[in-house]
Amino acid sequence: MKKKIIVTIGREFGSGGRIIGKKLAEALGIAFYDKELIHLASKESGISGEFFEKSDEKKSSNLMKAFALGFSVDSTLYQYDNYLSDESFFQIQADVIRQVADEGSCVIVGRCADYILRENSACINIFVNASEEDRLVAIMKDKEVDEKEAKEIMRKTDKSRASYYNYYTDKTWGASQSYDLCVNSSVYGIDRTVAFILSFVEE
Amino acid sequence: MKKKIIVTIGREFGSGGRIIGKKLAEALGIAFYDKELIHLASKESGISGEFFEKSDEKKSSNLMKAFALGFSVDSTLYQYDNYLSDESFFQIQADVIRQVADEGSCVIVGRCADYILRENSACINIFVNASEEDRLVAIMKDKEVDEKEAKEIMRKTDKSRASYYNYYTDKTWGASQSYDLCVNSSVYGIDRTVAFILSFVEE
Repeated sequence: MKKKIIVTIGREFGSGGRIIGKKLAEALGIAFYDKELIHLASKESGISGEFFEKSDEKKSSNLMKAFALGFSVDSTLYQYDNYLSDESFFQIQADVIRQVADEGSCVIVGRCADYILRENSACINIFVNASEEDRLVAIMKDKEVDEKEAKEIMRKTDKSRASYYNYYTDKTWGASQSYDLCVNSSVYGIDRTVAFILSFVEE
Repeated sequence: MKKKIIVTIGREFGSGGRIIGKKLAEALGIAFYDKELIHLASKESGISGEFFEKSDEKKSSNLMKAFALGFSVDSTLYQYDNYLSDESFFQIQADVIRQVADEGSCVIVGRCADYILRENSACINIFVNASEEDRLVAIMKDKEVDEKEAKEIMRKTDKSRASYYNYYTDKTWGASQSYDLCVNSSVYGIDRTVAFILSFVEE
């Protein structure tokens, strides 16, 4: 039997971390979880996937959350205690992450999986970054926006991911000390970075 | 002719970054610079090596510097403008770093070499960290101190290195974004970490 392996991947927006994770999972022949976690959390909790989508890797305002759950503005004032807190949503997703990690080897992208699975000795925690130049090119292409807009999306998404991570973990998002390996994907590009991470994981 | 290569290594205190750099240089058959830079800077400037030693990778107080240069307490009050600033000492060391990088392939440990050589396309910038547990064991053995003292030395040295780096560069010490590759040496130990970095450098 092959040894169980859980690879968690944190990533800067536009760094290629998601695709690197997907290719890594394919190369290792193991499961891959990114947005898939949202559907699982929704299925598990019975709460609309739309809401999980909206609060994915960011801390949402109570008002926005109330709307997502279908309350009117007035009713939010009275039903404040009746809907789930950010922390509860985090816990639902954390349970799903622990569950998929229990089920077998996999690659999990983002969502503080490294922290949630910190007691799991099968875990290897990786962070992917890239040069700002390369990230902007990737975002412009992916989102079909100009450079100025891409820069704004990049800044906001990274800020949101960092706040989410720093709030729920006792570590710092993107700090080398929070991971086992951090790689700048601009140095060798996506495919060679995958091969390189693979050699680290397979040691 | 083999392609020129400059590897810079930042490191947490006690992480094994220095020895990893030394073994990497040996494996690549290239020069290694750590404390050697102090002697070169001293030779270059005619200023006592003892002073460079004292201000190595830390910002020193003016009073301490005055003592290092042989002034009495009283004379420092009058000769304030007569001795070199921290920045001048940094510049002397920066010149030495640029010089050794010009001369040929090498591994350079610490001293903001990644930033000083940021225009040099032969550069690969690496950061080594390790678990607190492993670092404390290494420091206790190396400095012959108990755990409490080792913790204090570790905290102070890292703080000092971070301040020095963050002051002289536009990057953050230990942040993955500041380097091409960051490795936790606790995952595979010194020798396998060397082999792994070697595979990244030799790509």
